[in-house]
Amino acid sequence: MRARHKPWADDYLKENHELVELNPAENKGKWQQQISKDKPLHLEIGTGKGQFIEGMAAQYPTIHFIGIEVVKSIIVSAVEKVKDFQHSNVTLINEHAQDLSDLFGDNEIDEMYLNFSDPWPKNRHEKRRLTYHAFLEQYQRILKPNGELVLKTDNRGLFEYSLVSFSQFGCTLEEVTLDLHALEDPTNVMTEYEEKFSAKGQPIYRCRVKFPK
Amino acid sequence: MRARHKPWADDYLKENHELVELNPAENKGKWQQQISKDKPLHLEIGTGKGQFIEGMAAQYPTIHFIGIEVVKSIIVSAVEKVKDFQHSNVTLINEHAQDLSDLFGDNEIDEMYLNFSDPWPKNRHEKRRLTYHAFLEQYQRILKPNGELVLKTDNRGLFEYSLVSFSQFGCTLEEVTLDLHALEDPTNVMTEYEEKFSAKGQPIYRCRVKFPK
Repeated sequence: MRARHKPWADDYLKENHELVELNPAENKGKWQQQISKDKPLHLEIGTGKGQFIEGMAAQYPTIHFIGIEVVKSIIVSAVEKVKDFQHSNVTLINEHAQDLSDLFGDNEIDEMYLNFSDPWPKNRHEKRRLTYHAFLEQYQRILKPNGELVLKTDNRGLFEYSLVSFSQFGCTLEEVTLDLHALEDPTNVMTEYEEKFSAKGQPIYRCRVKFPK
Repeated sequence: MRARHKPWADDYLKENHELVELNPAENKGKWQQQISKDKPLHLEIGTGKGQFIEGMAAQYPTIHFIGIEVVKSIIVSAVEKVKDFQHSNVTLINEHAQDLSDLFGDNEIDEMYLNFSDPWPKNRHEKRRLTYHAFLEQYQRILKPNGELVLKTDNRGLFEYSLVSFSQFGCTLEEVTLDLHALEDPTNVMTEYEEKFSAKGQPIYRCRVKFPK
């Protein structure tokens, strides 16, 4: 996602330290105790401008949502959005998803979301896809036993790749939807991308997988 | 598939007993020895008018193909087609797929194909879908250890259902394609349905799964 440089972003994140975890690694192994106050923890990788995490936080007040977004000038929009709605069950982190095991202890997360991740379509970039097996190993480590992950994308190639990658890793498919919006699932919370692509009539793919113990 | 009643079909199948196995259960456990002459055995469930099995037999002369089709007035077209091309590596069976274990012994089949099976979209008809777990149990029994199955369909609901059903059964996805003809796979042999639907611009779904040992 491209975004304008925002020189004030650093200060803005610091000002909002109640919502933005500035030193997330310090909470490793203690997220539930220190941050979520015993609520289940759901983790979104690539939170973008925060439309999904805001909508989920509103819909599920008994769950605490953590959103990771690497682009500083984008996460500030998520901070603004969550602040506007005054949700207390959201924490945002400005980090790269490659370092998940530095941020979370084993079995700490109840559920994960990958929304419209970069498809990295070239074969030589396979390792960068967030469903590459090295990432799945990290997810398995931080997820509770039999923890679940929900992936949504409009990218056919990434979806095909991900189904195979999950399966070969030993995950079980719990649900596969090849045209999410034909389903008219009232609990579906749309991301910004999803709203845009879906309005163009493009199908949105979704799967839910369970990780092996 | 609807077809006109063909009163001569019975006699026609009997006349072609070299191609049509009239008492297939008698070969149970002995297909390779008695029929395929040590060639690997590939089994298509729902052979229809035979376009797929004819094309596969031509493309892979070192494999013996068995095609099952329950509708007598349709299988006669497959018989005509295979005869026209004089393939010696095809056997056709006019039986229901529910009785596979009566027809084949354990570990007898190398690979299976499900092409454009009836989607049975109503929930109460789930048990009739050819990827319902009771069918998968039969496939696993007659397939060699780690045997593979290739499914093609234009029906989104059946494909979504089948991916989940395979996964929950313990199969591993080896390949998933959500738009087969965008791939331009030169080895793909089209069925009659596939040719028709694909010409209308409908996507064709394909997956290849490996059964657990």
